[in-house]
Amino acid sequence: MADDRFHVYDTTLRDGAQQEGLNLTVADKLAVARHLDGLGVGFIEGGWPGANPKDTEFFRRARTELDLKHAQLAAFGATRRAGVKAADDPLVAALRESGAPVVTLVAKSHDRHVELALRTTLQENLAMIRDTVSHLRAEGQRVFLDAEHFFDGYKSNPAYALEVIRTAAEAGADVIALCDTNGGMLPDELAEIVQDAVRTSARVGIHCHDDTGCAVANTLAAVKAGATHVQGCANGYGERSGNANLFTVVANLQLKRGFDLVPQESLAEMTRIAHAITEVTNVTPNSHAPYVGTSAFAHKAGLHASAIKVDPNLYQHIDPAQVGNDMRMLVSDMAGRASVELKGRELGYELTPEHTKALVERVKDLESRGFTFEAADASFELLLRDTVHGERRRHFEVESWRVIVERTKGGELVSEATVKLHAKGERIVATGEGNGPVNALDKAVRMALEKLYPELARLELVDFKVRILEGTHGSDAITRVLITSSDESTEWATVGVAENIIDASWQALEQAVTYGLLRAGRDCG
Amino acid sequence: MADDRFHVYDTTLRDGAQQEGLNLTVADKLAVARHLDGLGVGFIEGGWPGANPKDTEFFRRARTELDLKHAQLAAFGATRRAGVKAADDPLVAALRESGAPVVTLVAKSHDRHVELALRTTLQENLAMIRDTVSHLRAEGQRVFLDAEHFFDGYKSNPAYALEVIRTAAEAGADVIALCDTNGGMLPDELAEIVQDAVRTSARVGIHCHDDTGCAVANTLAAVKAGATHVQGCANGYGERSGNANLFTVVANLQLKRGFDLVPQESLAEMTRIAHAITEVTNVTPNSHAPYVGTSAFAHKAGLHASAIKVDPNLYQHIDPAQVGNDMRMLVSDMAGRASVELKGRELGYELTPEHTKALVERVKDLESRGFTFEAADASFELLLRDTVHGERRRHFEVESWRVIVERTKGGELVSEATVKLHAKGERIVATGEGNGPVNALDKAVRMALEKLYPELARLELVDFKVRILEGTHGSDAITRVLITSSDESTEWATVGVAENIIDASWQALEQAVTYGLLRAGRDCG
Repeated sequence: MADDRFHVYDTTLRDGAQQEGLNLTVADKLAVARHLDGLGVGFIEGGWPGANPKDTEFFRRARTELDLKHAQLAAFGATRRAGVKAADDPLVAALRESGAPVVTLVAKSHDRHVELALRTTLQENLAMIRDTVSHLRAEGQRVFLDAEHFFDGYKSNPAYALEVIRTAAEAGADVIALCDTNGGMLPDELAEIVQDAVRTSARVGIHCHDDTGCAVANTLAAVKAGATHVQGCANGYGERSGNANLFTVVANLQLKRGFDLVPQESLAEMTRIAHAITEVTNVTPNSHAPYVGTSAFAHKAGLHASAIKVDPNLYQHIDPAQVGNDMRMLVSDMAGRASVELKGRELGYELTPEHTKALVERVKDLESRGFTFEAADASFELLLRDTVHGERRRHFEVESWRVIVERTKGGELVSEATVKLHAKGERIVATGEGNGPVNALDKAVRMALEKLYPELARLELVDFKVRILEGTHGSDAITRVLITSSDESTEWATVGVAENIIDASWQALEQAVTYGLLRAGRDCG
Repeated sequence: MADDRFHVYDTTLRDGAQQEGLNLTVADKLAVARHLDGLGVGFIEGGWPGANPKDTEFFRRARTELDLKHAQLAAFGATRRAGVKAADDPLVAALRESGAPVVTLVAKSHDRHVELALRTTLQENLAMIRDTVSHLRAEGQRVFLDAEHFFDGYKSNPAYALEVIRTAAEAGADVIALCDTNGGMLPDELAEIVQDAVRTSARVGIHCHDDTGCAVANTLAAVKAGATHVQGCANGYGERSGNANLFTVVANLQLKRGFDLVPQESLAEMTRIAHAITEVTNVTPNSHAPYVGTSAFAHKAGLHASAIKVDPNLYQHIDPAQVGNDMRMLVSDMAGRASVELKGRELGYELTPEHTKALVERVKDLESRGFTFEAADASFELLLRDTVHGERRRHFEVESWRVIVERTKGGELVSEATVKLHAKGERIVATGEGNGPVNALDKAVRMALEKLYPELARLELVDFKVRILEGTHGSDAITRVLITSSDESTEWATVGVAENIIDASWQALEQAVTYGLLRAGRDCG
């Protein structure tokens, strides 16, 4: 459990999901939560149960499917409606029933918003806050309050904005997070207002948006002014220009201001985690992101190369290893070799220096062409075996394949695949039908091989991911397909890359079957 | 000519060009310079004549081909080499001969860098500065000095860093720009050091990088501390995490701090200029960029839509028209009637309450099945038209289509599509080949329709995105395809959802063509 004196509060799954084009399934949300927990954040805001069926489902599944090591889940929701009791408001009930240890209530703190958006009186808004906070506290949940539009509200009516803080704190809210909801603040003015809020003696948090390009700096300014709870989103996701990038905030505070927010060894996973989350969200990673971007420590060699060799710290603001990133100009053969050696040992192979060198070169070449082996362990192991054996060994060889997808005149959709294979001295032709081209290919391969390898009946294709790389040439772009397969006891992933999506899928599928047969104890000579 | 009391100094063509993957021709540089001049910046740093033949050429062509209204060109270069006279150094001569009214000299201000990278003495470095500045001044050029690694240098040896400033100012440099070359500073510490530099009574400028996500805030903090010259790059281009985004800096200072930096009517061109520059650089625009990103004023939350109708200023930090941007409402599953109404109005349709209700229901139903309209404006508009017309109107009707993807025995990969369509009373059968199934379908549709609709030749498929939804059933999962198309003047996106990836692609493609024909003025009766 993280230290309670300073909160790192992630809102990727709620406010980050407001980003244009970002649409997360419940499974995606669970996966992102696991990554954030791995980083060591203190709180993960999961969504708004009751208002959104998907979020209700998230909290339901989280109870059994999420085993968080550091983080606590927070359910987001509004204060009760005007004119009803908190205990009688079904949306408040949904927060209570979410099972989340923390509830973060959003409340208006801008007088004009109370009147125009909420259409109630300033007094009733305070009563809504008081009533909802104390009701949830009495029911045993910890309560934080998001003071929406706080800074604009303070500028419109400072006494009322501060009264919202006092009311919430007196009713039992542990943290009042001041939200720059429209994102228009600059650090100096924001810091002055935070100082005034801190004088209420309530515990103050900060929630910033990047509309002035200052979300991170605003967050740091608020911390300096006394805030002890920072909100943000993975990779700076969020509506409009995004929320404060939580990764940048954490790295700045921990590496440059001496805060002890996440375990050092988790910080060293930050780059990997940032990229893993982009795989889930399917948002192209920002290569220029501070700390975690692939360009963040990339140097054009030139003039300074020799000086960099003498003392790299003269040319970088931190040691990139602290956040799990690399200085890219130094193409570090050693790092590559060490990790390949380690990975080989993990898989049970003792690699000779020659094999290691050959494998590193092969991986580098393939990754430069769009392959990714971090997410495709089975493809890496096949590559390693090919390198060790000095040849490509398979249980079957492909002569040809063909896929037809057709929408008939009658409106019927047909997907059919034919494969021609050679295995154990036989030539086999088989056809499969499916609900799509990859499914049809999968069926055809099984049909072809199941008599020779009956264990294929246990093999299942459980996930299929497509990513378009360099998406500037339309359908000319390179396609990367990741396929996850399982044999009931374990899962493995394979990767294929090609201009043609069907070809990329076929590559991943062929490897998936090969790896499955190896796992079943079938050697391929 | 811009006011000299406060400088907006652009370094896109020199420091911005250090960005990984950014490669500008001389013609590109001239085009970017014209755009920057249109915005009204005071200085445009064109490159390093003498060190780089392309930059020498840029300054040569600029004399006849650039007719700048606001900006002055600056040539960037280093102080003379150790142990020679400035007058005898060929690189200094190249600066003199560039014809640029301003020369910006980079000089070391960090003691360790002088010793390790320059390999000379601290005293000789000061002599190099003094000699080069006074030589160029005597030859009639205005001189600015970039104090490289100034902040790290100040922390290493404050007396020496300040001595560099004094030496340059006394020799005749008009501005000493303090450079956070490694980009590691945070605003509070940076501001204190700038204050100390300002006490030398030299005129101080600021040059920041975004390695802590604080480049813009650092620039603002320096201005508050007394800097009267800000450097930055268009769209935040630059090495590693980029330079300070000059557009964000200018908008913040002018709209929120009352500076009069560029003409108001030029500021209102900022969004257009930012995008025009991305066309030259061929860097994908950052849709989340503050002020100028396409998402910068996009609202998703359904909750707020009704209040936005009452008073949009409650929900945006500035009027987007001030920077030439627009408020956009995103239609998403959180959307209610108000946002659909607003979106309809944005598209030029006045919807009746009945149509609005029907459309909201249709959107909700489709989004629950995996469609997403916030990223597919064109699909939404087609849906809106169908709702208003009470029927589905198209330029062509599809009888059937078929795609074949085949890996032949010889290893050749073939993708072929056949479509059978009815249009203008004709039945058309056409076949296309492509590098993948979607490309083949695209070719076949064009082949079928181009005789009847020659404007299709201008339509281009520019992006293709695939997302597998609920990826727990392997290839049984639902596939969502987003296609972005363009007709040279604008872009639009369409969405298709199906179990079968080819079917989903076909849906998006069919809509893309339909929308393209509508844009070209082809009504469909």
